[in-house]
Amino acid sequence: MHSIDFIHDLAVIMLIAGVVTVLFHRLKQPVVLGYIVAGVIIGPHTPPSPLITDQHTIDILAELGVIFLMFSLGLEFSLRKLRAVGATVAVAGLAEIVLMIWIGFEIGRHFGWKTMDALFLGAMMAISSTTIIVRALDELGLKREGFAQIIFGILVVEDILAICMMVLLTGLAVSGNVSPQEVALTFGKLTIFLVVSLVVGLLVVPRLLDYVARVKSNEMLLISVLGICFGFCLLVIRLGYSVAMGAFVIGAVMAEARALRNIERLIEPVRDMFSAIFFVTIGLMLDPRVLGDYLGPIVVVSIAVIVGKIVAVSVGSFIAGQEGRTSMRIGMGMAQIGEFSFIIATLGISLSVTSDFLYPVAVAVSVITTVLTPLLIRSADPLTKVLARAMPRRLSRVFGFYTGWLQSLRLEGDQAVIAGMVRKILMQVFINFCIVVALFLVSAYLVRDARIFAGWVSDSGIQKALGWGGALLLSIPFLIAAYRKLKALSMMLAEVGVRRSFAGRHTDNVRRVVAEVIPVISLAVMLVLLSALSSSILPPAEMLLLVLVVGALVVMLLWRQFIKLHSRLQIALIDTFQKPPAEH
Amino acid sequence: MHSIDFIHDLAVIMLIAGVVTVLFHRLKQPVVLGYIVAGVIIGPHTPPSPLITDQHTIDILAELGVIFLMFSLGLEFSLRKLRAVGATVAVAGLAEIVLMIWIGFEIGRHFGWKTMDALFLGAMMAISSTTIIVRALDELGLKREGFAQIIFGILVVEDILAICMMVLLTGLAVSGNVSPQEVALTFGKLTIFLVVSLVVGLLVVPRLLDYVARVKSNEMLLISVLGICFGFCLLVIRLGYSVAMGAFVIGAVMAEARALRNIERLIEPVRDMFSAIFFVTIGLMLDPRVLGDYLGPIVVVSIAVIVGKIVAVSVGSFIAGQEGRTSMRIGMGMAQIGEFSFIIATLGISLSVTSDFLYPVAVAVSVITTVLTPLLIRSADPLTKVLARAMPRRLSRVFGFYTGWLQSLRLEGDQAVIAGMVRKILMQVFINFCIVVALFLVSAYLVRDARIFAGWVSDSGIQKALGWGGALLLSIPFLIAAYRKLKALSMMLAEVGVRRSFAGRHTDNVRRVVAEVIPVISLAVMLVLLSALSSSILPPAEMLLLVLVVGALVVMLLWRQFIKLHSRLQIALIDTFQKPPAEH
Repeated sequence: MHSIDFIHDLAVIMLIAGVVTVLFHRLKQPVVLGYIVAGVIIGPHTPPSPLITDQHTIDILAELGVIFLMFSLGLEFSLRKLRAVGATVAVAGLAEIVLMIWIGFEIGRHFGWKTMDALFLGAMMAISSTTIIVRALDELGLKREGFAQIIFGILVVEDILAICMMVLLTGLAVSGNVSPQEVALTFGKLTIFLVVSLVVGLLVVPRLLDYVARVKSNEMLLISVLGICFGFCLLVIRLGYSVAMGAFVIGAVMAEARALRNIERLIEPVRDMFSAIFFVTIGLMLDPRVLGDYLGPIVVVSIAVIVGKIVAVSVGSFIAGQEGRTSMRIGMGMAQIGEFSFIIATLGISLSVTSDFLYPVAVAVSVITTVLTPLLIRSADPLTKVLARAMPRRLSRVFGFYTGWLQSLRLEGDQAVIAGMVRKILMQVFINFCIVVALFLVSAYLVRDARIFAGWVSDSGIQKALGWGGALLLSIPFLIAAYRKLKALSMMLAEVGVRRSFAGRHTDNVRRVVAEVIPVISLAVMLVLLSALSSSILPPAEMLLLVLVVGALVVMLLWRQFIKLHSRLQIALIDTFQKPPAEH
Repeated sequence: MHSIDFIHDLAVIMLIAGVVTVLFHRLKQPVVLGYIVAGVIIGPHTPPSPLITDQHTIDILAELGVIFLMFSLGLEFSLRKLRAVGATVAVAGLAEIVLMIWIGFEIGRHFGWKTMDALFLGAMMAISSTTIIVRALDELGLKREGFAQIIFGILVVEDILAICMMVLLTGLAVSGNVSPQEVALTFGKLTIFLVVSLVVGLLVVPRLLDYVARVKSNEMLLISVLGICFGFCLLVIRLGYSVAMGAFVIGAVMAEARALRNIERLIEPVRDMFSAIFFVTIGLMLDPRVLGDYLGPIVVVSIAVIVGKIVAVSVGSFIAGQEGRTSMRIGMGMAQIGEFSFIIATLGISLSVTSDFLYPVAVAVSVITTVLTPLLIRSADPLTKVLARAMPRRLSRVFGFYTGWLQSLRLEGDQAVIAGMVRKILMQVFINFCIVVALFLVSAYLVRDARIFAGWVSDSGIQKALGWGGALLLSIPFLIAAYRKLKALSMMLAEVGVRRSFAGRHTDNVRRVVAEVIPVISLAVMLVLLSALSSSILPPAEMLLLVLVVGALVVMLLWRQFIKLHSRLQIALIDTFQKPPAEH
């Protein structure tokens, strides 16, 4: 048969991976390390000479490994959890990532590496390894402790930031320069894409999967999940984003399906198989001689990862209001790098912007820091005691004051309620605006690139008017919703902001004006922005006027229906979150 | 990234497969049909033009689908079940396969096809589809009925015969001719390989997996299972057999692990994913125009499959002692072809001995017969009634007599016990002999092809003596065991066969002579046969004598130890079968 080579490769990978992982388990080391070592054994750099022949296919399977790894992370991620984790994790996560990228970049520059190499090194050092942390905490029996929950929260924040980082790095690598406008544009587009994907995904995907799950056929559920997952990945690739990000996002969307437990159970073996291949290929690329040549950087980076992460995360957690001991535990738990670093390294290679040595360095650092993780977690408490004893009394009193001051800052009572409502309304307006922008961008694509009207109408003005008008028509429910939310917000702000002591007997009038003016101005700003964004399909002035008049008529006639439609969509979306996940 | 093509292909396959299978489920048709239709939609022969770009990788994944399909069949097969199913299924299965191959061959010749095409057509028509049958019986709520159990038994027999057929077809295709000696040699080698694989496999694999399963890590168990599965497939490929057979055999071996439930649960999603790809690629290859051109053969073959199988299986079951109604139900349940036919068709293509049209014909026939299966099962009882009414009374009385006569034939009491013991002993001797032959063949390979002694000893005579002597030494426990079993058998035969009425006062002496002579002669025959088989490493006469003398000395000195060793191995093997499978 024609594919003996490939079966041979797979057999070698699976056999050696199996043996080595069982060995590593006996040595109480993570399975992931076993895979990497298996890869080194199989690899072309160690005798007995290359055991892999069909490198192309193995690479593709490894890429499937990345997709399934990220998809599983997405499944575990869940937007519910994101709402539950508070400010601590955001501060600690952000502090860690910014500091680590900076440290990594500086180390790279210090060793005289290329800018891109230094940047990718920073990115690789930024993200801790969920796999390793979960395993280590599990083995030490600490998985249910409070600090572990915060670690998981920080990991979620890291995941999001990592996704952003990957998008940014891809953009950087492709365009080569870092103009702020471009970064802003990239992030703007990404944000709109993510918001729309999440909203549409959450409305459609969980319902679809729950419908399929009702058949009680594992096979059908699995194929549907894979179909949706790869279909979304395809869309993501077409839009120029990384497939890893796509898998993560669609995983997070599927996490809201009631059949989540079942989906996880079905995806687990598939993920384990392909991720094993992924980790083995990491080992395959590892040339022991490179490790010797780069011993210096490896040691420096390892120390930087451990010390940097402990300091950044601990201080970040402390600043965000955690106790000293807990902060230390959190920091010590996250002092390693893992699968995400490999994915970023793979990204660098596939974009061909990084040097060959970066990969083995990342792998070596990951191995060293992984092995040390359980030790570090265990030594968190003793170290805290030592630090507490060594710290001058005045400093520790300052720390105590800080914690107290921070707690006094928390909003309470009415203020907290108002702040919560403002945040919620702004979020809703933002989401609606993103959807409207997406509608116009898609319409622009359809009219200009796909030329869907070209067959029927020859005049480009009418084509544009049709496209722009269609987008406007579809946007109306969301624009109305945005307008109503903004009005509610301005009324509230007018009530709170325009004090009677200041405006005297004009108070009511001033309030009314504020409440009316703010939403109209906001909406006008939105429309102008939209026109700018959709400039490529903005019809000529007279047609635009016609379209706007028709739009206004439609709004007047169907105001109530639009509101009903939108609130139905909104309820459906909220429903998705409030349905309890089915127990297995 | 470099593998966008592939992700694109996979996305298209999974998306369309997902949609079509959900649709097919609503239409109450088997999922497998949905996959094939999805393949046709995606395929190059239907608009919108080819959606698949990286055909190489998709083909490889489809081949993984075959491996996992066969592996799952092996897991469900279980040697225990084989021991439980009786003569009925062997007779019915054999009757069906021989008749169908013959019918298929004749149909092929009738249409003027090549000999190989006709032969492969016969093979494709011979094997019914486990997947379709299980599904149909499940949906009709008949899965636990008596006749369903017999159907499953026949399917097991079919699986074994299909494996033999594939080996034979491969041999035929490669060598091109069909000399009886070659067939005998092929089957001899295959038998030895299978027996040794099963014995060694059953001793090692279930224990290994149970050891791994104790860790309670799904990931580790899965990777170990995959490692063993692909490792064995590799061995099988190296020996020139089909990878499908290897997957099936190693599956059957793993079926004896206590962790079977867990293994099945882990393999299921992986199998579903890859088998979906396999079935879709079947659709991919389907050119609707070919279907039009070969409408005649398709109709004829479909009718032949349905009528032929119903007649062959029903009559076979009836001859083997089933009631008329049950026989009819069994026959009507098996009147379709499915996954095995595709695997055989794939084999023909990969060996490039069959014509292109054979594949679409097989697929079309499979689709037609699959759709008709539930109808046929439901109409079994009415048809039986009609037949019973239409049948002349005399004929039905003959049938009644036959059933009664058959039941009177069954051995009872002492005779049954003795027959059972004889069968068991002969089986044990056979297994031991296979192991010994395998030891000599491996030794011949090591000495002659791998030249393992070439580094130490230059004289080829000494090399041969070492190899032959080593094989003999390792064989001694099995030879002793064979000798002892044969002795026990001859004593029993002497007791039963040499009647006092015939031998008079010499009875005891005659019996003793018979009991002593038979085993010695058998063993001598074995050794001569061995010498012939291992002729390539048979040392020169004087060295051979030396080796034999040393062997005899070892036997005398370590007789008891050898017996103990062998019985320990035997107990371990029996243990494997007697451990109850762990419940999930």
